[in-house]
Amino acid sequence: MTAPKPPSKPHLIRMHPRDNVAIVGNDGGLAAGTTIPDGPTLKDKVPQAHKVALTDLTAGQPVIRYGVTIGYALKDIAAGSWVHEKLLQMPSARNFENLPIATIKPHQTEPLTGFTFEGYRNDDGSVGTRNLLGITTTVQCVAGVVEFAVQRIRNELLPRYKNVDDVVGLEHSYGCGVAIDAAEAIIPIRTVRNISLNPNFGGEVMVVSLGCEKLQPDRLLPPGSFPIKDDRSTSVNTICLQDAEHVGFMSMIEAIMREAEIHLKRLNQRTRETVPASALVVGMQCGGSDALSGVTANPALGIAADLLVRAGATVMFSENTEVRDGVDQLTARAANPDVAQAIIDQLEWYDNYLARGKVDRSANTTPGNKAGGLSNIVEKAMGSIIKSGSAQISSVLAPGEKLGAGQRGLVYAATPASDFICGTLQLAAGMNLHIFTTGRGTPYGLAECPVIKVATRSDLARRWHDLMDVNAGRVADGELSIEALGMEIFKLMLEVASGRKTWAEQWKIHNALVLFNPAPIT
Amino acid sequence: MTAPKPPSKPHLIRMHPRDNVAIVGNDGGLAAGTTIPDGPTLKDKVPQAHKVALTDLTAGQPVIRYGVTIGYALKDIAAGSWVHEKLLQMPSARNFENLPIATIKPHQTEPLTGFTFEGYRNDDGSVGTRNLLGITTTVQCVAGVVEFAVQRIRNELLPRYKNVDDVVGLEHSYGCGVAIDAAEAIIPIRTVRNISLNPNFGGEVMVVSLGCEKLQPDRLLPPGSFPIKDDRSTSVNTICLQDAEHVGFMSMIEAIMREAEIHLKRLNQRTRETVPASALVVGMQCGGSDALSGVTANPALGIAADLLVRAGATVMFSENTEVRDGVDQLTARAANPDVAQAIIDQLEWYDNYLARGKVDRSANTTPGNKAGGLSNIVEKAMGSIIKSGSAQISSVLAPGEKLGAGQRGLVYAATPASDFICGTLQLAAGMNLHIFTTGRGTPYGLAECPVIKVATRSDLARRWHDLMDVNAGRVADGELSIEALGMEIFKLMLEVASGRKTWAEQWKIHNALVLFNPAPIT
Ligand SMILES: [Ca+2]
Ligand SMILES: [Ca+2]
Ligand SMILES: [Ca+2]
Ligand SMILES: [Ca+2]
Ligand SMILES: [Ca+2]
Repeated sequence: MTAPKPPSKPHLIRMHPRDNVAIVGNDGGLAAGTTIPDGPTLKDKVPQAHKVALTDLTAGQPVIRYGVTIGYALKDIAAGSWVHEKLLQMPSARNFENLPIATIKPHQTEPLTGFTFEGYRNDDGSVGTRNLLGITTTVQCVAGVVEFAVQRIRNELLPRYKNVDDVVGLEHSYGCGVAIDAAEAIIPIRTVRNISLNPNFGGEVMVVSLGCEKLQPDRLLPPGSFPIKDDRSTSVNTICLQDAEHVGFMSMIEAIMREAEIHLKRLNQRTRETVPASALVVGMQCGGSDALSGVTANPALGIAADLLVRAGATVMFSENTEVRDGVDQLTARAANPDVAQAIIDQLEWYDNYLARGKVDRSANTTPGNKAGGLSNIVEKAMGSIIKSGSAQISSVLAPGEKLGAGQRGLVYAATPASDFICGTLQLAAGMNLHIFTTGRGTPYGLAECPVIKVATRSDLARRWHDLMDVNAGRVADGELSIEALGMEIFKLMLEVASGRKTWAEQWKIHNALVLFNPAPIT
Repeated sequence: MTAPKPPSKPHLIRMHPRDNVAIVGNDGGLAAGTTIPDGPTLKDKVPQAHKVALTDLTAGQPVIRYGVTIGYALKDIAAGSWVHEKLLQMPSARNFENLPIATIKPHQTEPLTGFTFEGYRNDDGSVGTRNLLGITTTVQCVAGVVEFAVQRIRNELLPRYKNVDDVVGLEHSYGCGVAIDAAEAIIPIRTVRNISLNPNFGGEVMVVSLGCEKLQPDRLLPPGSFPIKDDRSTSVNTICLQDAEHVGFMSMIEAIMREAEIHLKRLNQRTRETVPASALVVGMQCGGSDALSGVTANPALGIAADLLVRAGATVMFSENTEVRDGVDQLTARAANPDVAQAIIDQLEWYDNYLARGKVDRSANTTPGNKAGGLSNIVEKAMGSIIKSGSAQISSVLAPGEKLGAGQRGLVYAATPASDFICGTLQLAAGMNLHIFTTGRGTPYGLAECPVIKVATRSDLARRWHDLMDVNAGRVADGELSIEALGMEIFKLMLEVASGRKTWAEQWKIHNALVLFNPAPIT
């Protein structure tokens, strides 16, 4: 921990020349009466990251941030007033007609060369950032047995396979008691399938099945679904607990351990080698957001995303309800009309999914968002989209889909915004590095892939000094430019991809895989 | 393990005098050509638990089992033939009009007295069967931190509190990224709330919260929701990770441990005392069912259910899609018209829930069910309902609801049939003992409450000798009557409630809490 800094000069942060509100940058907020250089005198005490009116606003006037109308003033608001959520009426969602389609031509950007990391090359061309044995499960019923086996593998086998980082039971709540023939069941099924094929597992797929579950191993992983290797001719890859050969619990445990050892031996042959930065598949996400998310951490991720694209890497952004109000920005940035249509299809499907449950995108925002200065989902969305940077959107993934060989650059991976569900779906897409920004703070981690956590403000970074990997609050403090922070994050990604542990990995804190299942359960 | 038995005489099991099919009782099935004493000669090889036509059936004729039409013959079927699922057309679901309402008058049954167990009395009158510290969580985000703390509590604190059996982190996938204001969100919310109030946690509720989640601690447990004790005046019961007081990860862990110790001290004062059998709250369930489920294990549970009701205890049966086809039996057995209407309301709501996802009750059956001889959901339902015995249905719980003080006797707890979701909801209802029948075999267990597992057939009981607690296959083998087995199970329940460990407890195998959330996620 470093000593607390002297208070910085009062300052507001405006995101776009058209904006008629700006937010307080100072840690701890500003008192009523504070005079802002080149700005208004505050009429109210305004917390950090909350909005201040830059001019007098009359009732009904658009309130503009990020150059976008985030709401309409519900009454007259004097310059220098705190513009909080109770003073704003939220605009309705833009419909899907007459959207700008692939209208923005790409910047001519210089390819970024010479950046590399030390990764594990896989036979299918993907690259792992960790060397993990993943144990795939077909159904929650086997979770207790797998957990028991994982403990024994970790204690008894792993010490002999020094190049393997860990063993991970891919437990989940799916597999039985579900309407598996419902059309939307494809989402959880392909999610589990594709997670088992994540680059960090090196193609060493092994499955623990119960036997009578709906999600049978051949349905989960039909022949041909392993792009990497498939030696099921030897029928060695699935342990089925109900098989007649198992007499007694230890027979099941030992069968899992024997199978695990076959894979551990092969995984132990993997060694890190120098690979170009283009092998990164980065999943970006924000959670526990505050108004600084869209000012410090997410814009820096936007810079990093542009660097990744220039380096030939893949970078995914997600969170349907947080891009819904910027659908026109997304369709305009689509590389071609097919991509634009795929974006519309995903967001329209999600609108309908929410409507079935009689809610809409505004169900996204949390008490913490509002306490953190985000008045509504429109404002939150603008601060969330900014992490996608400025590149063209090259392709779109439906929830649980895996990136194809040709899908590189900036990808919109359509997912719910829920942190643990979005992360689970990005793992299925093939993510080998996760970067996560938070303003309120979350100890989020994944067992399957490193998660770099970026604090939006210095106060959080100081308090959670051994949980947050990056302090983006330095931008609000005026210590660092967004561009410099973006480059710092890009370089940190390469270090973490090469094996440097994140805080979540050091403590071994991780969240459960949580599947997105829009189909009914039975 | 006992030595395999000599093969028993060929025999079929008929459930009702009206039945025109019966199932093969013999372990291993019977060969074509086998002559059945007082029955047909088999035309086909028929696996154990599969159906045999007792008479010639003509195309279109009702096929009757449990005295109920389980399907219509799709073609002529000769006596002695194997009647498998491809030969049957499933009847459509009975509609909700003109049902018999509370028409069956209760048997005059003798109260059953003199049975007791050794349990932990709670202040609210409930009784625990285990002495556990439960750590309630408001959101999945905190799961990694809670897991870390649970390990340290188990290693460092529990050895000093010998009367406490274990510490359980009540982790779940809810709390954020959900449409928490959707009408149906009440289900997952009350489920988490009511699980924290389960009798096995002794009223010692402590909560770990992130801070910015949608499911705020006061929404999860509003003042007054603790029927047992509520000392939130001291604000000591919630650890909020985002609180400014926490500097560094260890500050969070130590705060959880300090709070845990307060509760461990009080839990350690609990001692077992003799209580009447009426303090049992038994949740009954079946999973991984085969056709013997409805012949051996479930009928024996029916006997045990009747004994429990006679002893003044509470016994719940559940699994909406497995009672749907017997709705007329349930409404007829309702204690009064209000109870009958509550049953209809729950099943109608569930029909609509399934229809929203474009499926129906037939989505329940699994490949294992069919391989095990259950042709369709109607046949499966008849074999599932039978575990409710013959008592009147005294009340109905909606999913996630908790039993009220006056709700005793036979209760229909409306839940999905999914094993881990049904179990989670029965925990919320206040279950202190779970009994689970299985034909195909599942290693199912819960950390929150003992689970007695009953094998429907001897083959499974022999192979899974250290996972199955009871072998109901002895009924099919002709060794034991259903009535004798029902009494044996009743007595075993009292022993397990008194502290005898089940196999799942000995191995510490347990499944995750899986919430039923019909509302959208965001
Ligand atoms: Ca977000
Ligand atoms: Ca998120
Ligand atoms: Ca666990
Ligand atoms: Ca069942
Ligand atoms: Ca079940």
